Amino acid sequence: MDEFELIRRFFSKDNNDTSVLIGVGDDGAIISPSPGHDLVMSADTLIENVHFPDCLPAEDIGYRCVAVNVSDIAAMGARARWMTLALTLPDVDEKWLQQFSDGLYHAAQEYDVSLIGGDTTSAQQISLTISITGEVLPDQAITRSQARRDDLIFVTGNLGDAAAGLDLLVNSAASSKTEEFLIQRFSRPSARFEIGQALCGIATAAIDISDGLYADTKKLLMASELGGHLYIDRLPISMELKKIYNQEQRLKFALSGGDDYELLFTAPAMKLNEIRKIAHIYNIPITEIGEVRNQSELNCSLNDKLINYDDSGYLHFNG
Amino acid sequence: MDEFELIRRFFSKDNNDTSVLIGVGDDGAIISPSPGHDLVMSADTLIENVHFPDCLPAEDIGYRCVAVNVSDIAAMGARARWMTLALTLPDVDEKWLQQFSDGLYHAAQEYDVSLIGGDTTSAQQISLTISITGEVLPDQAITRSQARRDDLIFVTGNLGDAAAGLDLLVNSAASSKTEEFLIQRFSRPSARFEIGQALCGIATAAIDISDGLYADTKKLLMASELGGHLYIDRLPISMELKKIYNQEQRLKFALSGGDDYELLFTAPAMKLNEIRKIAHIYNIPITEIGEVRNQSELNCSLNDKLINYDDSGYLHFNG
Repeated sequence: MDEFELIRRFFSKDNNDTSVLIGVGDDGAIISPSPGHDLVMSADTLIENVHFPDCLPAEDIGYRCVAVNVSDIAAMGARARWMTLALTLPDVDEKWLQQFSDGLYHAAQEYDVSLIGGDTTSAQQISLTISITGEVLPDQAITRSQARRDDLIFVTGNLGDAAAGLDLLVNSAASSKTEEFLIQRFSRPSARFEIGQALCGIATAAIDISDGLYADTKKLLMASELGGHLYIDRLPISMELKKIYNQEQRLKFALSGGDDYELLFTAPAMKLNEIRKIAHIYNIPITEIGEVRNQSELNCSLNDKLINYDDSGYLHFNG
Repeated sequence: MDEFELIRRFFSKDNNDTSVLIGVGDDGAIISPSPGHDLVMSADTLIENVHFPDCLPAEDIGYRCVAVNVSDIAAMGARARWMTLALTLPDVDEKWLQQFSDGLYHAAQEYDVSLIGGDTTSAQQISLTISITGEVLPDQAITRSQARRDDLIFVTGNLGDAAAGLDLLVNSAASSKTEEFLIQRFSRPSARFEIGQALCGIATAAIDISDGLYADTKKLLMASELGGHLYIDRLPISMELKKIYNQEQRLKFALSGGDDYELLFTAPAMKLNEIRKIAHIYNIPITEIGEVRNQSELNCSLNDKLINYDDSGYLHFNG
């Protein structure tokens, strides 16, 4: 199968997006953007055995690569619209391609984003780069750098499920509904695209959690040239995670696990009611987990006791 | 060096592009597009030892990956504006990164395109995906599919130099100015961005030559559901290529070599004067090399004799 045929068979689904004037198949795609909007652009690469284990089913790889890219656009408060896919494969496996394509288009439909082009190449390791473009009204995008002193720190959904899911995926097969749930949180992350857009004008800064709560909170605060405090006992932990892992493991997954693709954001206390309303509308918990402080460090406390935390993911209990 | 520091040091050059509201460093970049324009988007992956030999200097890799992507946008008649870079490297080699970055920014400046974001990851083989976005006025973009019966087929610049350059690069060191010139045509291809834009309203269809003249002409004609004829004796061949290679080698490079990144386009005969004017303004030869015909095949003739040509790159002389 040549590249032409491969693209035609697996990556040329029409989705009736009228903004796409020319889609997959020419030197470039032609898009008619919405007048009066700014564009938000991002690119993310996923590599086999680096960003996902080689046991991850092709359908999940396809779904996941879309979701993690939509998540970046959501973290800016923008609406994801169009994406290109650069797909590198060691060989042409039609079954794999069909499943991958199914997962990718499933996510594309769920997040209302159109695949408009890309490239297919050959190399030893599976590697995927999605480049995604979203739209946002001028001056409405949420960056990492505008958190302000005394802002509260919030997080959507639950933390640590995806890291636990990856642990289960690699080390054992799913043998219960609980384990299946956690694995699903890794293989099919939910990009919080509706909440991200709803937070425009409310959140002062936002980031999506890909590297772990602690590391990503630090990134946001560093970009805002501030520090902060996280109340570890407030971290939202799912029933499922509690069922299988002890407290130390749970906190490790929640703080440093990554791959949750929940939104971490800051907002002033006066916005609390609006934030509760958003959580209610989209039926996703939003939890207040800390504060922005006029300091350089990011501190953590557990049941009113300060704890040391380092980026390697270990908790050192002081008390 | 962590990813943060790597991006800061090598990929955060400011270029005073006022359309870039937020550049490298956040979840996504924020762009203010020109009102009243459509967008043209494309992505291209370059892999070490697939798309370029591992002996290619890092500075040339950086330059080349920008130029080949700008070329896709140029082939649509659009103006390249913004790009993201997904860079996968086996290790962090600061000297390599500095040279790569120098080449990349050199091309970015030459083609007036801004690096606005991307991703850095680690894998065994060097791999680069650039995603590029350009702008074009509505209904002005040139696709592959609108060539019409009796249109003439034109090509910019000279053909075969890049393939000869690659041959020299891999098999021998440059030992003369002529060899150096040809190697340069591979390692630093010229994207015909000005000519591409000038052809809006003149060319009926266009494609950039990355896979070789014959294969890419065929792609354009297939997209237009037509066939055509190429006059092999009219192919523009540089003095340098003539100096080193015999006729058979030259034609092989010109027809199937690829990597030239010249523009192949079709236009009706009545546009000949306008095309000559464009060639004059930008000081790049534009040569009429064939015609679009109402047939399914793409034929070739050499000195009025039909010749068989197959995609493997071999000429079979009939006469």
